[in-house]
Amino acid sequence: MKKLILPLLLFFIVDSFAQPISVYPTNWWTGMKHNKVQLLVKGSDVKFNTSTPSVKHAGVTIDQVHRLENGKYFAIDITISPTAVPGNVTFDFINGKKKQSITWPLKSRDTSLKFAQGVTSEDLIYLIMPDRFSNGDPSNDKIKNLKDQSLNRDSIFDRHGGDIQGIINHLDYLQDLGVTAIWLTPVFENDMPNRTEHGYAITNHYKIESRLGTNALYRKFSEEVHKRNMKLVQDAVYNHVGLYHFFVQEKPTKDWLHEWPSYTNTTYKDQPLMDMYAAEADKKRMSDGWFTRMMPDLNQHNPYVANFLIQHALWTVEEFGVDGWRVDTYIYNDLEFMNRCNQALMDEYPNISIFGETWVHGVAAQAYFTQHTIDTKFKSNLPAVTDFQTNLYGIMNAINEPFGWTNGVNKLYTTLAQDFLYKDPMRNVVFLDNHDLSRVFSIVGEDIGKLKLAIAWLLTTRGVPQLYYGTEILMKGFTNPDGLVRKDFLGGWAEDKINKFTPEGRTAAENDVFNWTKALANFRKNSSAIKSGKLTQFVPEDGIYVYFRHDEKQTVMCIMNTSDQEKTIDLKRFAESIKNFTKGKEVATGKSFDVTATLKVPKQYLLVMDLN
Amino acid sequence: MKKLILPLLLFFIVDSFAQPISVYPTNWWTGMKHNKVQLLVKGSDVKFNTSTPSVKHAGVTIDQVHRLENGKYFAIDITISPTAVPGNVTFDFINGKKKQSITWPLKSRDTSLKFAQGVTSEDLIYLIMPDRFSNGDPSNDKIKNLKDQSLNRDSIFDRHGGDIQGIINHLDYLQDLGVTAIWLTPVFENDMPNRTEHGYAITNHYKIESRLGTNALYRKFSEEVHKRNMKLVQDAVYNHVGLYHFFVQEKPTKDWLHEWPSYTNTTYKDQPLMDMYAAEADKKRMSDGWFTRMMPDLNQHNPYVANFLIQHALWTVEEFGVDGWRVDTYIYNDLEFMNRCNQALMDEYPNISIFGETWVHGVAAQAYFTQHTIDTKFKSNLPAVTDFQTNLYGIMNAINEPFGWTNGVNKLYTTLAQDFLYKDPMRNVVFLDNHDLSRVFSIVGEDIGKLKLAIAWLLTTRGVPQLYYGTEILMKGFTNPDGLVRKDFLGGWAEDKINKFTPEGRTAAENDVFNWTKALANFRKNSSAIKSGKLTQFVPEDGIYVYFRHDEKQTVMCIMNTSDQEKTIDLKRFAESIKNFTKGKEVATGKSFDVTATLKVPKQYLLVMDLN
Repeated sequence: MKKLILPLLLFFIVDSFAQPISVYPTNWWTGMKHNKVQLLVKGSDVKFNTSTPSVKHAGVTIDQVHRLENGKYFAIDITISPTAVPGNVTFDFINGKKKQSITWPLKSRDTSLKFAQGVTSEDLIYLIMPDRFSNGDPSNDKIKNLKDQSLNRDSIFDRHGGDIQGIINHLDYLQDLGVTAIWLTPVFENDMPNRTEHGYAITNHYKIESRLGTNALYRKFSEEVHKRNMKLVQDAVYNHVGLYHFFVQEKPTKDWLHEWPSYTNTTYKDQPLMDMYAAEADKKRMSDGWFTRMMPDLNQHNPYVANFLIQHALWTVEEFGVDGWRVDTYIYNDLEFMNRCNQALMDEYPNISIFGETWVHGVAAQAYFTQHTIDTKFKSNLPAVTDFQTNLYGIMNAINEPFGWTNGVNKLYTTLAQDFLYKDPMRNVVFLDNHDLSRVFSIVGEDIGKLKLAIAWLLTTRGVPQLYYGTEILMKGFTNPDGLVRKDFLGGWAEDKINKFTPEGRTAAENDVFNWTKALANFRKNSSAIKSGKLTQFVPEDGIYVYFRHDEKQTVMCIMNTSDQEKTIDLKRFAESIKNFTKGKEVATGKSFDVTATLKVPKQYLLVMDLN
Repeated sequence: MKKLILPLLLFFIVDSFAQPISVYPTNWWTGMKHNKVQLLVKGSDVKFNTSTPSVKHAGVTIDQVHRLENGKYFAIDITISPTAVPGNVTFDFINGKKKQSITWPLKSRDTSLKFAQGVTSEDLIYLIMPDRFSNGDPSNDKIKNLKDQSLNRDSIFDRHGGDIQGIINHLDYLQDLGVTAIWLTPVFENDMPNRTEHGYAITNHYKIESRLGTNALYRKFSEEVHKRNMKLVQDAVYNHVGLYHFFVQEKPTKDWLHEWPSYTNTTYKDQPLMDMYAAEADKKRMSDGWFTRMMPDLNQHNPYVANFLIQHALWTVEEFGVDGWRVDTYIYNDLEFMNRCNQALMDEYPNISIFGETWVHGVAAQAYFTQHTIDTKFKSNLPAVTDFQTNLYGIMNAINEPFGWTNGVNKLYTTLAQDFLYKDPMRNVVFLDNHDLSRVFSIVGEDIGKLKLAIAWLLTTRGVPQLYYGTEILMKGFTNPDGLVRKDFLGGWAEDKINKFTPEGRTAAENDVFNWTKALANFRKNSSAIKSGKLTQFVPEDGIYVYFRHDEKQTVMCIMNTSDQEKTIDLKRFAESIKNFTKGKEVATGKSFDVTATLKVPKQYLLVMDLN
């Protein structure tokens, strides 16, 4: 892969006054279905686009040249014919006697890596904030020319020094745990003055954040992941950029961003998007208001913006070898644009999986944003969502709320009972916590039993499970007031006295939860019933929720006791699912149980049994 | 109409040992689309159905004779040809030398009454428990041969003596209030030992409960209602009957009821009906379990049961002149049967409105039971539902819960924002309370302001508003623990010292709410915007929820302040709906407001203004 590590921007200056020219995407490939590429070309001279572009490369032709309002920019539509030969493509820009030239790499596709495989219910995703997992390369902790110079592990919103190399160093740990896919919060450059730890304020779409590593290292990370038969999930941000992106600092067109007479925040209210009674003003504020003052809202109706973002998505998958695609703040985007973008990815990579962040309330609202079974005017083609409903109105109630007619585990049951609104709920990504939510261990009042129950549910319910880094070793923290849900994984830094990556560094309780998670995650890897089988759930009674995962080969019975007392369960009610099985082997402990009559289940416990 | 008051069962005994024969339906009409009628014929002799039936009437033929398992019963399929002449049809039953005969009235349709008009969003329904509204005929308070002899106004679950004549006596009161449709809880005979006040345990489908009146009086009631251009809503019960119905005491077939090895109650859990993961056992318990021990569950898969119920529905509409059809415990019925039954009503009466009771949780669940926009395997043809969602997750939160991201009036807003799941949400029946729910005045802690807010919402939101008797005069009561939501309307009994039907009998507060309700209800009668216009709603902010009802002719602006402080509302946000209007006239008070800049709205108040 060495040949990929070309300097990103090659340029030749013929005219002595000329300044560097940038081209986005920074390269392309021969043999792509997407072979009509729109190059956004940025010069330094405010009259740059008065020049005339031309290209000299067999099989590469210029179809149309768009001179944007800001004189520094061209958008150039090119076609890369199927017969085009890989190599450096030269573009000339001639203005009277002045001539500037750039070369633009047209690469052959790398077939050595199996990627774009899709992340499915067969997988277990592990979500990492790269700044907070492990510092594998202290030399990149502070980068001179970047605005945020805050390196300080004692402050939750400063840089901590974690990086891609640190993750590479711990892939064995993740593989041992049973993880099969890794999702990092965004890895592209965030050259912002502060709060750069999360990565969602991108300032350069084509450059991996230097404090995390290089484009080459991210590619290496992908290769290491795939070597272990694991998959890579990319966190994509279309809705906004960081304030210091050239999109904002040197807007190519006047309408590049959504701008308002005075600063206007999004309402964060998704309802107007689907509400048949919605006011136009509410729709506009929701979609076009800014996510924060530091993250201007892109105008995806602008065709150049749209093309830039779509091509960046394709480029990222191809360049780094991505399998699953997570879309940040999905509901804030222009949804028609998102359909185009999703379609472009699915056209190029038929097996890729895409899931959007849908922090909304109610199954109907969430279903609206993905492929659903409702006859709506607008139809989303998004294959899946981050399933906030089974979290906010599901497992959290099951473990933290007393049982009631519509409360406690009845809420979880009822939320799943509404899955008929999705085209395929099995594609949804289920989770207990993430970088924006309080950590589940804190939510359950640091109750080990409840945490284990929640983890066992995560690994046996329908959907694609996602674990947030450190949940398995009892990491804790609330979002409010201090955001301590983004703490460091202890042992990830050379100076850490304790190393939670090893059994010796973990307390007994931490090992208990780690081993519980590991047992279920590894069982899951080979469980056809869980990976692709059906779910059958029974009406909860008395705080007991019983469900089965099953296919022709295997039946897994799950008895969740959400009450604070041991319960004796009469199994008669479940006869249609237990069928002729007489015994169940508990996955986490190996213990055998008789399933022909009654069964005792400890308080706040999820008994997962492989029936035999 | 005198000719309708024939004895219900005419019979001639030729054989000296013969006993009475009953036929259901007790009559039919010429000129009905539904002209293939299945008669359930019940004799007294256990070998009755060894006889051979024949008919002698021009245009009436027997198509098929079914001898049911219980020898007392025939089901006889007849065709009433378009040329059949009204009159008494004679059926003979011959068994060797024995012959029994009955005559069965075939009537001509009464064209004097305009009925089956449908109850729509143009109407205001008033729900009455006839035993509790007014005692117009003390002579029928106690009926000798009926099991419940409990007459006692001091006990909430005993008989109180209210009746149909009492309602007839107060139609002027209702008309003055602005009511346009009247729904009585079921009026057919409930010959049960106790708890007969509600009417849902029917023991004779063809006889009006004697303590309420007679079949003739109910017909007269309908005529009186229609004379005032009001409409009649019938409360229909298909799911179950009273334990003392002959369906239970002398079952026509072994499978007439859903019977279980030991008593099995319904789970009251609707989820298995729609849940793609549901267990079969849960579906069966939900649909086939009994509603209570006193109300056995009918097996609607039995074709004779199904035909009996469907024909009873048609008979009721035709016999009494019904406009709207309310189906009790809708979700507990066999839903395929319900589709057949609904279709039969809609085929015969294209304009009739039908709404089912759907005491469920969540818009998706509720939508499942009516015509919706979801691609479900089972598709309900039910046109509308009792909208428990805008109640339980809507107006009650708006008036009783502090404002929050997903709480307070945001819940009402969010519930309405999910209306895209219904085919036509405007048909749904909205309400503040009913005979099964705590009265709204008690729920709001007897706060007059909150009650007025709720009533104003009821009369201006989308859908068909339904008022529960006495809400307008501050009747109160909680369902738990004492069921005091079914108290008498004071003044409805001759012995009442106070008469709430008159302004003089009401307190100032009661007159305040009565007049508020009356003003809005009467405004509504002539408001095209509310009756059939569109709804536009804005995202609630700071406890303020603003919505508009509008069409080309009229714009009604509603500002709901749910907070406990007066608020000054900046009207700029609502420009797209206020358009060029500059003033608003408050409907309830006639006060005029300037709508060009800001507006003060008192705490817990709904300002309804007709813009001009």
